[in-house]
Amino acid sequence: MVVVMSPKASEEDIARVVEMVEDAGGDAFVSRGKHRTIIGLVGDTERFMALPIPGMPGVESVMRIGKPYKLVARESRPEPTEVQVGDVVVGRDSFVVIAGPCAIETEEQAMASARAAKAAGAHILRGDAYKHRTSPYAFQGLAKHGLEILKEMRLETGLPVVTEVLHTTDVELVASYADIVRVGARNMQNFQLLREIGRTRRPVMLKRGLSATIEEWLMAAEYIAQQGNEDIILCERGIRTYEPMTRNTLDISAVPLVHRLSHLPVIVDPSHSSGRRELVAPLALAAAAVGADGVMIDIHPHPESALCDGPQALTTEELAPLVAEMGRVAQAVGKPLARQSPGLSAVGQ
Amino acid sequence: MVVVMSPKASEEDIARVVEMVEDAGGDAFVSRGKHRTIIGLVGDTERFMALPIPGMPGVESVMRIGKPYKLVARESRPEPTEVQVGDVVVGRDSFVVIAGPCAIETEEQAMASARAAKAAGAHILRGDAYKHRTSPYAFQGLAKHGLEILKEMRLETGLPVVTEVLHTTDVELVASYADIVRVGARNMQNFQLLREIGRTRRPVMLKRGLSATIEEWLMAAEYIAQQGNEDIILCERGIRTYEPMTRNTLDISAVPLVHRLSHLPVIVDPSHSSGRRELVAPLALAAAAVGADGVMIDIHPHPESALCDGPQALTTEELAPLVAEMGRVAQAVGKPLARQSPGLSAVGQ
Amino acid sequence: MVVVMSPKASEEDIARVVEMVEDAGGDAFVSRGKHRTIIGLVGDTERFMALPIPGMPGVESVMRIGKPYKLVARESRPEPTEVQVGDVVVGRDSFVVIAGPCAIETEEQAMASARAAKAAGAHILRGDAYKHRTSPYAFQGLAKHGLEILKEMRLETGLPVVTEVLHTTDVELVASYADIVRVGARNMQNFQLLREIGRTRRPVMLKRGLSATIEEWLMAAEYIAQQGNEDIILCERGIRTYEPMTRNTLDISAVPLVHRLSHLPVIVDPSHSSGRRELVAPLALAAAAVGADGVMIDIHPHPESALCDGPQALTTEELAPLVAEMGRVAQAVGKPLARQSPGLSAVGQ
Amino acid sequence: MVVVMSPKASEEDIARVVEMVEDAGGDAFVSRGKHRTIIGLVGDTERFMALPIPGMPGVESVMRIGKPYKLVARESRPEPTEVQVGDVVVGRDSFVVIAGPCAIETEEQAMASARAAKAAGAHILRGDAYKHRTSPYAFQGLAKHGLEILKEMRLETGLPVVTEVLHTTDVELVASYADIVRVGARNMQNFQLLREIGRTRRPVMLKRGLSATIEEWLMAAEYIAQQGNEDIILCERGIRTYEPMTRNTLDISAVPLVHRLSHLPVIVDPSHSSGRRELVAPLALAAAAVGADGVMIDIHPHPESALCDGPQALTTEELAPLVAEMGRVAQAVGKPLARQSPGLSAVGQ
Repeated sequence: MVVVMSPKASEEDIARVVEMVEDAGGDAFVSRGKHRTIIGLVGDTERFMALPIPGMPGVESVMRIGKPYKLVARESRPEPTEVQVGDVVVGRDSFVVIAGPCAIETEEQAMASARAAKAAGAHILRGDAYKHRTSPYAFQGLAKHGLEILKEMRLETGLPVVTEVLHTTDVELVASYADIVRVGARNMQNFQLLREIGRTRRPVMLKRGLSATIEEWLMAAEYIAQQGNEDIILCERGIRTYEPMTRNTLDISAVPLVHRLSHLPVIVDPSHSSGRRELVAPLALAAAAVGADGVMIDIHPHPESALCDGPQALTTEELAPLVAEMGRVAQAVGKPLARQSPGLSAVGQ
Repeated sequence: MVVVMSPKASEEDIARVVEMVEDAGGDAFVSRGKHRTIIGLVGDTERFMALPIPGMPGVESVMRIGKPYKLVARESRPEPTEVQVGDVVVGRDSFVVIAGPCAIETEEQAMASARAAKAAGAHILRGDAYKHRTSPYAFQGLAKHGLEILKEMRLETGLPVVTEVLHTTDVELVASYADIVRVGARNMQNFQLLREIGRTRRPVMLKRGLSATIEEWLMAAEYIAQQGNEDIILCERGIRTYEPMTRNTLDISAVPLVHRLSHLPVIVDPSHSSGRRELVAPLALAAAAVGADGVMIDIHPHPESALCDGPQALTTEELAPLVAEMGRVAQAVGKPLARQSPGLSAVGQ
Repeated sequence: MVVVMSPKASEEDIARVVEMVEDAGGDAFVSRGKHRTIIGLVGDTERFMALPIPGMPGVESVMRIGKPYKLVARESRPEPTEVQVGDVVVGRDSFVVIAGPCAIETEEQAMASARAAKAAGAHILRGDAYKHRTSPYAFQGLAKHGLEILKEMRLETGLPVVTEVLHTTDVELVASYADIVRVGARNMQNFQLLREIGRTRRPVMLKRGLSATIEEWLMAAEYIAQQGNEDIILCERGIRTYEPMTRNTLDISAVPLVHRLSHLPVIVDPSHSSGRRELVAPLALAAAAVGADGVMIDIHPHPESALCDGPQALTTEELAPLVAEMGRVAQAVGKPLARQSPGLSAVGQ
Repeated sequence: MVVVMSPKASEEDIARVVEMVEDAGGDAFVSRGKHRTIIGLVGDTERFMALPIPGMPGVESVMRIGKPYKLVARESRPEPTEVQVGDVVVGRDSFVVIAGPCAIETEEQAMASARAAKAAGAHILRGDAYKHRTSPYAFQGLAKHGLEILKEMRLETGLPVVTEVLHTTDVELVASYADIVRVGARNMQNFQLLREIGRTRRPVMLKRGLSATIEEWLMAAEYIAQQGNEDIILCERGIRTYEPMTRNTLDISAVPLVHRLSHLPVIVDPSHSSGRRELVAPLALAAAAVGADGVMIDIHPHPESALCDGPQALTTEELAPLVAEMGRVAQAVGKPLARQSPGLSAVGQ
């Protein structure tokens, strides 16, 4: 940590900072400049952060050096994390395709999507029973009945499934149906939910908040990891910017940055980031090329009649050629498509 | 609602949209242009929004005309809402000052702040027992013990109190201590929490999310109002932008916009929006001049040793002259400072 | 300046940085931490900035401490700058009102606006002969003919005038008509134009760029000051954010920040920041309360037929009551309305 | 165009809009809804845009349907534009690599970069003689002497060159040395410069402004095209967002969007968008996969001693393997690397 003193700071102001740091068991190195003095703090940064230095007289600013997260930082593990999901591994050696309906609307729609996803080569299915909607007047999901359909999707295809949990009270229930429990963008800083999920032993997918910095996103992952669950898959899904042509701006740079900062895997959601069907394929290919560990894609047998986010869903027919093309790109960057699981035993058994 | 057809839309594409609208009980007016055709929809907009028009062949875009919220819209009430809090009214006829510590840290710190706030002329006290922190390693509040101190602040000063609730499971408890229950920026779209709070009959303060549009903010208020609680005070607290010099950018324009769009009162939090003590006074004065219905200000007897957000707290001595200056500005725009309550009966009695 | 070494930096890496700093005539103070080493640089920061330190082996990041601008920094002058414009002083002791048409469209429209502005108590007139338009198909201004009308506005009212210059080739011409030459938001980093204007001895108004940080804005002012012209009035006019309800988001916090960072005066443009007529009055009042040194307001005798930015112009009748209200607010914060000039001698004499 | 009337609009208000549209030679279709009336305008949109409808009584808002640009719109040409640069074609059939130093600093540095770029398989060289710097105290380029070195780079390698022009007064000079004249991000809305460049017959590269929408970017291209020059290559280089980890946020979605909206080619600059060397390769690969028509990459023989943007330059050795990898990705998405030109005749001959 570095403390920058104001040009008007007195010798006493400086001495007071040094004393406080030393009292906290740290060392303070003072660099006196022509205009201002800088104090380098050496020791336990967390402890320094809790000290009231920013408000002390003569202090201009305090800069934290290093990362505020620990467990999810790359330095904390020698090897990147591989999250085992059924027979599939989500991690840096291969590229994983997750596909399925945004919302589970009817058994027919969900099963058609699940079969198409499997036939196209997807490794994991998606499908939500609980939907987070800005408007209280919009479709909110089938709840428990949706989870039952999800179970059927899983059983028939033999593929693992990911689904969103919205409320702390549903964590246990959702975790009993899902291979991966997903935290949505709006809940990225719902710390109670993060802790609750951290206590399950299910793999977690953590979407980046709409306007979260990469550091805040990793801090949210830290909340989960602190509870003992480090099977976390990060999911970049676009950030809010001034550009109106896409629903969000896919921050493709987040993928290599996360790989440098953390040992966790990171995937891309090209459907929710753009909100436009015609952008899904190019963005999915970009994700494969940039080194993402996978993608998650909305499909729908009849996007024109979807109850939720229809304009961004691919048709079930569009998925297979896209998976093939992603496979070629992933191969070109030395990270081949994962192998599809031949089957799957029942959840939690 | 307006449906814009693509230049390549066929007559059948147009007919299909018209038919769907008419089947839903609406009227469709077709305007055929040189380049493209526009269809005006007349009838029940909510019903139209649920139709799968955006994905239909030949449809380029669908534009919603009018507001997606109803209960909190200005049109739904002849008069602006006045939220009664103890003896104080938060509404458009006067300017209300809320002050107190960001977090309740110790009884001594909290009581000193409460006394100073009362002496300075504040109408409502603030003080949080539960803190939402980006880092799991930061101070998270005194919880129940903090609420007990809050009770004491209330009893000794006779002023009503506002405090934040973080989790759905705490709503009942917090509401039993607080005159106003606050929803923080990170929880603005925690719809489960909004519904839970909507079911209490306590006045609610709803902070704007970090990157929420004004429309999304009003939609969040709609979630509360839908449960039968329209005693909602909106609180503008800055939005995330690219400018690094302030923690957030206070969107001062939001105040007159909310007054035009909704019947709800809206206040400003100059402390959390800027994150810098030296900006609190000018921003509070701007809030008074722009027509806000009040401000909420962090104070601390010893900001330099605050456990949370110290750099933005005013000292207890700085508050009184600021209240006086806000009073002069509020008077100048025809909206005088509210009268301070002489006393207060116990909560819920 | 502070150099943060990576945790993996070797002793040689550190020694190489120290040597380079010392070769450049500076001192380097090394603080060795448990995880990483920090080097504080003392000496000529500009010289250090030109050194290739950021790319050296073992260097993680370089943080500049202190301001990159000098001439416009508050530290460079004991007293705030007062810009003399005709008989009016723009500075921290009073509040100045600039008003007039956005674009000069016809002699009749311009003269009606000028007379109304004077009658309402404005101190300076605005009116543009050159317009910067996003679309090549939009009205681009009356050019030389517009400047002639501007001259007439000035002569008849006796008030000084401010007008925008778009191109370097027009600087001399525009400066011969204007009391204040304005640089628009899109030209804030047109450094050739800034230098050219810096060479005139006319006061300059420098609008903040659409997405400029406050630091970049002050750096742009530095380009002008470097040419010997420090009669610079900064103008906050809103920044680009994700919020769609206003054309731009007025960054009201920029006013007190600029006053702390620089000795230059700063005014607010509530018309261009919001783009909405109904927000002009509340935002102008907020500007007066926050301590701005003035406002610039678009007026039009017939806003509904304006060729440019009509939706944001006040009618000429709306101005007088607003000036009176701003006067009361300015008084309340101890910064009264400036006195209107009784008359004015011809430009350049 | 669609005019949305306010719920309180009178019949006369509606009639007045209809009359104005008809007087302008258009047709107005009125759709009367329960709450509000919508008027669809059919005819010459440009003419309608110049009408003062937004300020008329009873008008709530005016929505433009369709694109405000014409010449650069996809609809204006049956085939995508191919820009011929020496022997190389920049367009949708192949992927082009532009590489070279950000700034030309010395003959040695520039020639070493040029040779390395050619050896690595680059098709076009970059190198700037004029630099646009936020600080007036930073290196501003070698000017004319830099252009002479550029000429040498071109002659020795036989590759065409792209270089930036900053000022209108330099357009002719720069165009006499360059195969492609580049407009930088800060000049994207310097319309005088755009017009001047549009009058040359040199291919132009137009970088996206730091906070320009895609529509504004295409409008800027329209300024150039209006002068008769449609040999325009768009260059996405990142937009300003709240995320501090990258200098800008690469808006990768802009590539497929531009391809849908316009017939112009679009490339990506991974160096300036990220500002971080370690992100250049992954972002360049993402650009190849997303369908960009090329990339532009900074290289430097000694990035650690670069006078400008050193932290983002690849070493000359890093380029060749990256070009090979981009070639594989480009192949995978059916858009192979362009063939490198065997030689080149002198400029302008």
